Amino acid sequence: MDPGRNQATLPMTASRKARIDPQVVAFARRTATMSASEVRALFAVASRPDVVSLAGGMPFVQALPMEDVAATVREVVEERGAEALQYGGGMGHPDLRRRLCALMAEEGVSASPREVVVTDGAQQGLDLVAKVLLDPGDEVVVEEPTYVGAISAFGAYEPRFVQVPMDGEGLVVDELEAAFRRGVRPKFVYVVPNFHNPAGVTLSLRRREALVALCREAAVPIVEDNPYGMLRFDGEPLPCLRSLDPGNVIYLGTLSKVFAPGIRIGWVLAGAPVLDHVLLAKEAANLCSSSLTQLVAEAYLGGDRWRRNLGALVDVYRGRRDAMLAALREGFPPGARWTEPRGGFYVWVTLPDGLDAAALLPAAVERRVAYVPGTAFYPDGRGRDRMRLSFSYPPEEEIREGVSRLAALLRDELARGGGPAQ
Amino acid sequence: MDPGRNQATLPMTASRKARIDPQVVAFARRTATMSASEVRALFAVASRPDVVSLAGGMPFVQALPMEDVAATVREVVEERGAEALQYGGGMGHPDLRRRLCALMAEEGVSASPREVVVTDGAQQGLDLVAKVLLDPGDEVVVEEPTYVGAISAFGAYEPRFVQVPMDGEGLVVDELEAAFRRGVRPKFVYVVPNFHNPAGVTLSLRRREALVALCREAAVPIVEDNPYGMLRFDGEPLPCLRSLDPGNVIYLGTLSKVFAPGIRIGWVLAGAPVLDHVLLAKEAANLCSSSLTQLVAEAYLGGDRWRRNLGALVDVYRGRRDAMLAALREGFPPGARWTEPRGGFYVWVTLPDGLDAAALLPAAVERRVAYVPGTAFYPDGRGRDRMRLSFSYPPEEEIREGVSRLAALLRDELARGGGPAQ
Repeated sequence: MDPGRNQATLPMTASRKARIDPQVVAFARRTATMSASEVRALFAVASRPDVVSLAGGMPFVQALPMEDVAATVREVVEERGAEALQYGGGMGHPDLRRRLCALMAEEGVSASPREVVVTDGAQQGLDLVAKVLLDPGDEVVVEEPTYVGAISAFGAYEPRFVQVPMDGEGLVVDELEAAFRRGVRPKFVYVVPNFHNPAGVTLSLRRREALVALCREAAVPIVEDNPYGMLRFDGEPLPCLRSLDPGNVIYLGTLSKVFAPGIRIGWVLAGAPVLDHVLLAKEAANLCSSSLTQLVAEAYLGGDRWRRNLGALVDVYRGRRDAMLAALREGFPPGARWTEPRGGFYVWVTLPDGLDAAALLPAAVERRVAYVPGTAFYPDGRGRDRMRLSFSYPPEEEIREGVSRLAALLRDELARGGGPAQ
Repeated sequence: MDPGRNQATLPMTASRKARIDPQVVAFARRTATMSASEVRALFAVASRPDVVSLAGGMPFVQALPMEDVAATVREVVEERGAEALQYGGGMGHPDLRRRLCALMAEEGVSASPREVVVTDGAQQGLDLVAKVLLDPGDEVVVEEPTYVGAISAFGAYEPRFVQVPMDGEGLVVDELEAAFRRGVRPKFVYVVPNFHNPAGVTLSLRRREALVALCREAAVPIVEDNPYGMLRFDGEPLPCLRSLDPGNVIYLGTLSKVFAPGIRIGWVLAGAPVLDHVLLAKEAANLCSSSLTQLVAEAYLGGDRWRRNLGALVDVYRGRRDAMLAALREGFPPGARWTEPRGGFYVWVTLPDGLDAAALLPAAVERRVAYVPGTAFYPDGRGRDRMRLSFSYPPEEEIREGVSRLAALLRDELARGGGPAQ
């Protein structure tokens, strides 16, 4: 590896007085693929109060009844303190795993607590599944575009990414089949079937059936990541891939959108050989998830309030999606296209020819609006003509204002010929 | 790899109906080193109420004032709920990082919040440091014996372990120097200088000075893991390696013993090039630590109650250590030797010739006492004549009873010639 080159892509976080010298200490080869995500680079910008951030994918946790949650956490410590403050087993608390199975049943997924390992958000699920399956040079199929956190989680294990295109029905399964025919033999196929991040599309029923049949035939496991499935605004739910083929699908869930990301609770649902390895990798990675936040999640999922709160949140998100789509239709220039999500957090925009979302970002921030350039969602630098807009966090009027600022920028750019923004 | 062989070492956790077939799906090569730790195998046994467990290393969290902690978590959610339930930055909450620096200052370590990345316990620190430094085949020096969790965390990155012996003064630095002279060139040297797990010994001042000088000269970074430093029962604190040579020491801390393991808060303190990589690896692994438990930790470390509570805990642990040492002196057979820790959780026992702690464990459990066989603390199966006894969790009378049961077993075994126990 070339530590000098690698170093150049890294942010400055700590004292440069330090003596451990990148010219002397060779970092592991896997670090060559690690670089600060464009999402992180936007954190500082997006937090400026005058900037409308359509960048981050933060749930609107302010809608939760804080006094109720506060009472829950107090009760957990008062009544189960010795357990909540202690180490727990690596698989996660049995009571929580039972609740997670009940939650999955709401989406038609049948699961037993002994098939579940609790993780620190679904992100840790991505990391652990990759850790137990990927050797350097192995192929892994992801959607085009794909979740930025999957690129970083998988990337640490040095696979070769094979991106398969999506359209309005989600992953184009014929293209996957063509890839298999070309000799692509991935360790797994990673998909976000519901309200895709960043693409905003949902895998259709016939594509779901075709995908599981193709992968079963090819003996290639599917990793199904379903953070947004319960955030549906309209239309009927579609079956999870896991319920279509439990034997060949590793399912990743999270409470980040159903409850709150600050508790860092996700899970892996898988059959024995995979789950056994994931459990060992989990213990090696951080022993166990927080007993406190596991018991808080368990208590929160008891009764029916989670359902009420989630229903209220979905109403909020639906209104924000509508506001964003209306603003896009009203203001975005001809030639721009975007997806119309029926749930989730994201709209995926394709810019008119000649506009470059990565190059335009500084100008956008100058106009007090932020987004994530499409390049974040490709491992190879493509996607410059795309941008991800999130409607989950800002109120509707800010969404309208933000989209309007962005629309003005795009129109101005097109008027001056569409070159780079600076 | 040989998935069949690997499979054989794995516990049964999930349905065997699953179709993903270990004969078809090749797990990553790194999983060949993963096996259920002997500590986990003991979990079920140790939780039987009639068994005195001297096995687990659980802090005695029951000593914490639960009502006070419950009030703290409630306040955090009521007053900072939108923050506590949301995603946070990958480095960790700035307020918590400031508190952690103040805590390190108590042990003489000078640190700035921008040199700290919050992790999910020190275990995640071990994982991330190994992840950014170790390529397959790299050498890593650990103590002999070493922390079982370090073997599993580092092992996932397929290094070659080089164990360097310890004596009553901790790591024998002359032996490390001899290893360097033999051509050992490790990526780092991993040490637990205070109240070692499992060895119970503390690195002496002259050894500390010799170690940092040797490693600085050899340009080999030290990874200093200090979970127990503030749990000193008697004697004067010794300087941390980090404070002796900030430029060449990566420091791992944790609140698991100072506050509670159930919140999963640890941290990495390091200079820029290492910390930058650790941060990227952290984000890839699980995005960020729980905002809720970070803010709870931040609130708990405010004021002076943490110090009072810790002082009370240290008194409890001191009494338990004394009870264990007295019981060992009273009951253990001639030929047995053990360390006399001045802090921490563990006594390390060397059995009389011919006794095998791994083979004896089932007989011990039959006599209603559990421990961890020494083999857990060596990557290569050595340590059968050793056992780790923990005094952190059971009350003094149970410790006396447990050691007495164990003493009777050992004496009976010696009387019948000391062969395997079954």
